[in-house]
Amino acid sequence: MITVLVIGIGSSSPGHLTREAVAALNRVDVFLVADKRARTDDPVARDLAALRSELCQAVISHDDYRVIEVVDPPRDRETSGYREAVTDWHARRARIYREVIDRELPDGGTLGFLVWGDPAFYDSTLRIVSQIRDAGVDLTIEVFPGISSFQLLAARHQLILNTIGGPIHVTTGRRLLEEFSPELGTVVVMLDGQLTCRGLVDDHPDLKIAWGAQLGLPDEALVRGRLADVVDEIAELRTAIRARRGWVMDVYALLW
Amino acid sequence: MITVLVIGIGSSSPGHLTREAVAALNRVDVFLVADKRARTDDPVARDLAALRSELCQAVISHDDYRVIEVVDPPRDRETSGYREAVTDWHARRARIYREVIDRELPDGGTLGFLVWGDPAFYDSTLRIVSQIRDAGVDLTIEVFPGISSFQLLAARHQLILNTIGGPIHVTTGRRLLEEFSPELGTVVVMLDGQLTCRGLVDDHPDLKIAWGAQLGLPDEALVRGRLADVVDEIAELRTAIRARRGWVMDVYALLW
Repeated sequence: MITVLVIGIGSSSPGHLTREAVAALNRVDVFLVADKRARTDDPVARDLAALRSELCQAVISHDDYRVIEVVDPPRDRETSGYREAVTDWHARRARIYREVIDRELPDGGTLGFLVWGDPAFYDSTLRIVSQIRDAGVDLTIEVFPGISSFQLLAARHQLILNTIGGPIHVTTGRRLLEEFSPELGTVVVMLDGQLTCRGLVDDHPDLKIAWGAQLGLPDEALVRGRLADVVDEIAELRTAIRARRGWVMDVYALLW
Repeated sequence: MITVLVIGIGSSSPGHLTREAVAALNRVDVFLVADKRARTDDPVARDLAALRSELCQAVISHDDYRVIEVVDPPRDRETSGYREAVTDWHARRARIYREVIDRELPDGGTLGFLVWGDPAFYDSTLRIVSQIRDAGVDLTIEVFPGISSFQLLAARHQLILNTIGGPIHVTTGRRLLEEFSPELGTVVVMLDGQLTCRGLVDDHPDLKIAWGAQLGLPDEALVRGRLADVVDEIAELRTAIRARRGWVMDVYALLW
């Protein structure tokens, strides 16, 4: 029997961790981290690994833990179906994680996963851990919510995401243009590497945007205004941040 | 010049506070709390006031703060427009808060608002504080995000709210039946005192629900299953909790 803690770490800034998450981090024997570095010299993976290490050092009050990095299986981007490719990639991750559990974790041990933001939003850790349990491994799962990037975005812009009584719709860059409609209320867009919202400017000239990148990190950037007025400024900022840091992670809300 | 801290306190369980929120609580001179007790002997208001006090005692490391309770102006529920009634109620709150600031807070002082969940979702504090600033009071606002009830719901059910790449729609009981459509993805319903989702059973027999009440409190209750199968059980639980505690606060997610 082992225990698996799935811990939301927000932006990785120690201030954004909940007290429960800090206590959970202190219980972990082995952190399992999927690392892309073995196959690419990806600056995101390198930076994020460093941020994770700093976080652990900042809030864990002992040295009795290990961090095991496993090579992330490449996702097949040629397959016809996006969903099928992702599902298959999860199954391969589950097999790799299970090998690590069998090899590295004693009975009664505690395995930890650090999840950026909140495990409830656009993260596959819980799906993969459930697969391992469903495959017959005797494990108990505990989940600790974290502050998601769009919550930090709202806080930085001092924004209530809903209009009075209105809805909030959270979606991805991939689906934005197809889904978008004023009836959705405020639309939060995650995982958009392309600033897809530019495609909404002509049809919705009064739409506003609250945008943020590297939220919670020293190179945090914020822009807010009418989408038509600020979309070029945002595009330039994204380019500048990527040039400086090697990567950019952003999130935005579209508001009426 | 005064500083206003708008602090998300999640469920009010000290474990759900972020470290930044704890630090913010420790900076406050005066907490301003809108209290319904003066006009009704509302058990929610009484319980929530007690939870707030316990929270402050648990995480504030000094005694140099005061809690000022102001009588919440009644909302006009007879007015034709819901939105107008709410807007008018906000304006009256803003006037009352401003009187307290003028009377109780020295120049350079720090005023704190404790917001259940996250100030970004279905809470009016930021709107009211912005009104006070826009009316000419010299104040600096800082916002601290918190864990919202639907994040705790997801954590308790060990749930990822989105399907792979799919959207998440957050709405209220008031709008659910009018808005509901499978294209919205997972639908999170806040502020529903009526279990409005019962109205979806006939048209959507396979819809699933993950429900929770009093999340983070000792009388927490969770139910998960096919909506058609569990809606009566949920209704009974709501009634039982309300009978025992005097009130019930719940949230749910509808999933495919």
